[in-house]
Amino acid sequence: MIRLEEIVLRLGGKLVGDPRREVAGVASLSGASSGDITFYLDSTPVSALLSTNAAVVITKNIRQDIAEKSQVVTENPHFYFVQLINEFFPVDSAPRPAGVDSRAFIGVDVVLGRGVTVAPHAVVSDRVQLGDNVFIGAGCVIGEGVQIKSGSQVFPNSTIYAGVKLGEHAIIHSGAVLGGDGFGFVSEAGRWYKVPQIGSLVVGDDVEIGCNTTIDRGALDDTEIGNGVKIDNQVQIGHNCVIGENTVVAGCVGIAGSVRIGKRCKIGGAAMITGHLDIADDVTVSAGSLVAGSIRAAGRYTGVYPLGLHAEWLRSAVELRKLGRNKGESGKHNFDQ
Amino acid sequence: MIRLEEIVLRLGGKLVGDPRREVAGVASLSGASSGDITFYLDSTPVSALLSTNAAVVITKNIRQDIAEKSQVVTENPHFYFVQLINEFFPVDSAPRPAGVDSRAFIGVDVVLGRGVTVAPHAVVSDRVQLGDNVFIGAGCVIGEGVQIKSGSQVFPNSTIYAGVKLGEHAIIHSGAVLGGDGFGFVSEAGRWYKVPQIGSLVVGDDVEIGCNTTIDRGALDDTEIGNGVKIDNQVQIGHNCVIGENTVVAGCVGIAGSVRIGKRCKIGGAAMITGHLDIADDVTVSAGSLVAGSIRAAGRYTGVYPLGLHAEWLRSAVELRKLGRNKGESGKHNFDQ
Amino acid sequence: MIRLEEIVLRLGGKLVGDPRREVAGVASLSGASSGDITFYLDSTPVSALLSTNAAVVITKNIRQDIAEKSQVVTENPHFYFVQLINEFFPVDSAPRPAGVDSRAFIGVDVVLGRGVTVAPHAVVSDRVQLGDNVFIGAGCVIGEGVQIKSGSQVFPNSTIYAGVKLGEHAIIHSGAVLGGDGFGFVSEAGRWYKVPQIGSLVVGDDVEIGCNTTIDRGALDDTEIGNGVKIDNQVQIGHNCVIGENTVVAGCVGIAGSVRIGKRCKIGGAAMITGHLDIADDVTVSAGSLVAGSIRAAGRYTGVYPLGLHAEWLRSAVELRKLGRNKGESGKHNFDQ
Repeated sequence: MIRLEEIVLRLGGKLVGDPRREVAGVASLSGASSGDITFYLDSTPVSALLSTNAAVVITKNIRQDIAEKSQVVTENPHFYFVQLINEFFPVDSAPRPAGVDSRAFIGVDVVLGRGVTVAPHAVVSDRVQLGDNVFIGAGCVIGEGVQIKSGSQVFPNSTIYAGVKLGEHAIIHSGAVLGGDGFGFVSEAGRWYKVPQIGSLVVGDDVEIGCNTTIDRGALDDTEIGNGVKIDNQVQIGHNCVIGENTVVAGCVGIAGSVRIGKRCKIGGAAMITGHLDIADDVTVSAGSLVAGSIRAAGRYTGVYPLGLHAEWLRSAVELRKLGRNKGESGKHNFDQ
Repeated sequence: MIRLEEIVLRLGGKLVGDPRREVAGVASLSGASSGDITFYLDSTPVSALLSTNAAVVITKNIRQDIAEKSQVVTENPHFYFVQLINEFFPVDSAPRPAGVDSRAFIGVDVVLGRGVTVAPHAVVSDRVQLGDNVFIGAGCVIGEGVQIKSGSQVFPNSTIYAGVKLGEHAIIHSGAVLGGDGFGFVSEAGRWYKVPQIGSLVVGDDVEIGCNTTIDRGALDDTEIGNGVKIDNQVQIGHNCVIGENTVVAGCVGIAGSVRIGKRCKIGGAAMITGHLDIADDVTVSAGSLVAGSIRAAGRYTGVYPLGLHAEWLRSAVELRKLGRNKGESGKHNFDQ
Repeated sequence: MIRLEEIVLRLGGKLVGDPRREVAGVASLSGASSGDITFYLDSTPVSALLSTNAAVVITKNIRQDIAEKSQVVTENPHFYFVQLINEFFPVDSAPRPAGVDSRAFIGVDVVLGRGVTVAPHAVVSDRVQLGDNVFIGAGCVIGEGVQIKSGSQVFPNSTIYAGVKLGEHAIIHSGAVLGGDGFGFVSEAGRWYKVPQIGSLVVGDDVEIGCNTTIDRGALDDTEIGNGVKIDNQVQIGHNCVIGENTVVAGCVGIAGSVRIGKRCKIGGAAMITGHLDIADDVTVSAGSLVAGSIRAAGRYTGVYPLGLHAEWLRSAVELRKLGRNKGESGKHNFDQ
């Protein structure tokens, strides 16, 4: 139980209500019990606010419609709530330092900082360097010469190929594969020959990479992920891409090779970006859009077929196809659809 | 060799032909040898039926065009065929109970039911509870406090984060990651801060989850997968989603956070559903469609650009772009395409 | 340091410049230092050629605009460059033969060729057959009875289900899952029943499969990947697909079940192909396109909504929707967007 006065003393904000009121936990508006503290954003339907069981609500503006509850008023309620969790209700399932397990494999000439954890069945190959407090989860395979700076966490069953460099405080989720070979082949006399992928992958500080995401090493130069970049699950980033600082990439996005993305961009879920493009700073790409050309100015860009009832889609698709035909064309084709 | 009379005695159906005829194995129409039993669906081209080498065909209606073959007539031939495999030709590569391997890691306060298998190099963390006959494949990492009910199978190299709950008879395929952090960040003063993901993931009974599929834990509340849900490979399901019973989700689908999907829905391959939507019961979303708004009634919904020859697409795309311009606009842009 | 005369002696090509000039390494045009050799393709902007620091450039035609540099003139500069790396600058982080590690698990009746490597914590199940010089990375799980021919490499944390067959010189990248169950269910009385997946997966020679790619085993017949096929990361290939020789499949592609793709096709990134289709030889599918019908003739096919500013997209989408309505329809719907 935490008293509201302790919270406000530590985190600031204006308290409306009894400072000695105690809260037992954090919860969402709908999931809160009567002892919980929650938060409300102006973009949330007000009905959710009015029906919450929470005792205390963090809000941007004082609310008259929940006068019976305590309120903490602050400019950025969501950020305040995050700080509240981190300070007073830390996640108890987070990885804890546990040293190097005897069932882990540690190669030769490995450099381990203080407080490093290597969990059972992990493999830390020759010449790896791990900074202070680095966490390597069970079953991870860290390739030769990989460098991981202090405070970074690599969750179980992730794989990092040889020579990759990770910055500080990275979070790499399970199943991620960093530094695999880029997709490079050259055609000669009717068959494909592999282009050796001898660049590397360099990841900045404060980067989070989601479950089963893959980021390829460069062909000759390096693939680069800037500081503060956040990447969701199941994302694919091709060789030689450069992602600018604080850009966020939602789930299922595919970015082909040699794409340069600016700072503070937001790439929506399942968007696909084809190769060798430049995307300016502060660009938002809507979910599901295919980007096949460079984008030279900030703004929001979209390209998705609007959803409709299947029967209506059939009609609009027929009309759209007609727009693509030259006059007099029969419309007969060597494909079905 | 199994006699047809044994099959019909056990599984029902009307036999047309010699009850003492024997079959050696099960096969597809095209792959069958002369000793095999196969099945025919009315939706299959009849040419495949007429050219099969199988001795026996399971059909919905008696067929005069294959009078020389034996037939088993039943309402649902595909379901009959599945029962036939399970009863008479069980898959011999299925996981077999093998106890807890000495090379597995078992934490403290772990509860193991009868007949549990933990394969080599798997990690079962502290306080995990495994029901009877649970199978944990090689290299799996089961996080702290995870609960898995009886009869569930987790194939090799899957990862389950701390606190996730799985129902009975789940099948989790290799490379799946369950309960990873949702993609939650809050912006403050120009950078992103991680929102702790303190909800969990609760999976019902009889759920199958495909290879390399990822399902995130909730931010505050839980992510929930209903009983009987079937999820294919490479699917991404975001935090706080709720998927209704018996819904099927095909490969490569992305579902962003806080989506509620009803019962008995069919989400086609590579469809993408953006966040905070509601999808009604009995909705079918066609493959490749982007769903960016709630769907409030059953039916089939589609939104994909019709495929065409590239040259025709170029023309239709130009016309479509024109539809988006205000009169008098030049069409000049800060992007290429 | 390698003298140019040695290179040309071994690899051919016409040398323009001093045969005794030495090069220290290979690099891209933009990444090259003054001692490096690089290559130039006619499709690359000439500005990149004019600004390179490289001492030597491999080109298709003699260039007058870089007369101060040495040149190696050859028909296919990229292929020449690849041979150059392989012969004179081999990748030093490539897997090296290291025998069977004592921390690997080797089942019974396993057949190991000469020079086989099995890294720590890998699992090689009963009755597996590994040809000469096969490399099995750390944490890989190779299922019962799998056959892998000589020279193939399986990178860490990959999983191969029971009975899969791999040809010679395959490269399987980390996190790939080969031979998982196809997505097969039959509906009976309102619930889904699993269709046993008793076919296998057969992969030809010289196939490369990317990180976290999944390829399902067949339901009854086998899934087949032809010789020389190259598959990028995060690709999903469903049960019973047949992929023809030398076809390339870019990242994030989804191919549903029972698709037959011809030889020498190019499937662009994030394209999706629905089930039971035939694709002819030499077909190119553009990135992001949805293929919902068979393609019977070679050519390039495209179907993606052209990207635009969001405001313009809103207008074009409204117009496109109108094309789908019958006259007099209200446009009211049970879905939002």
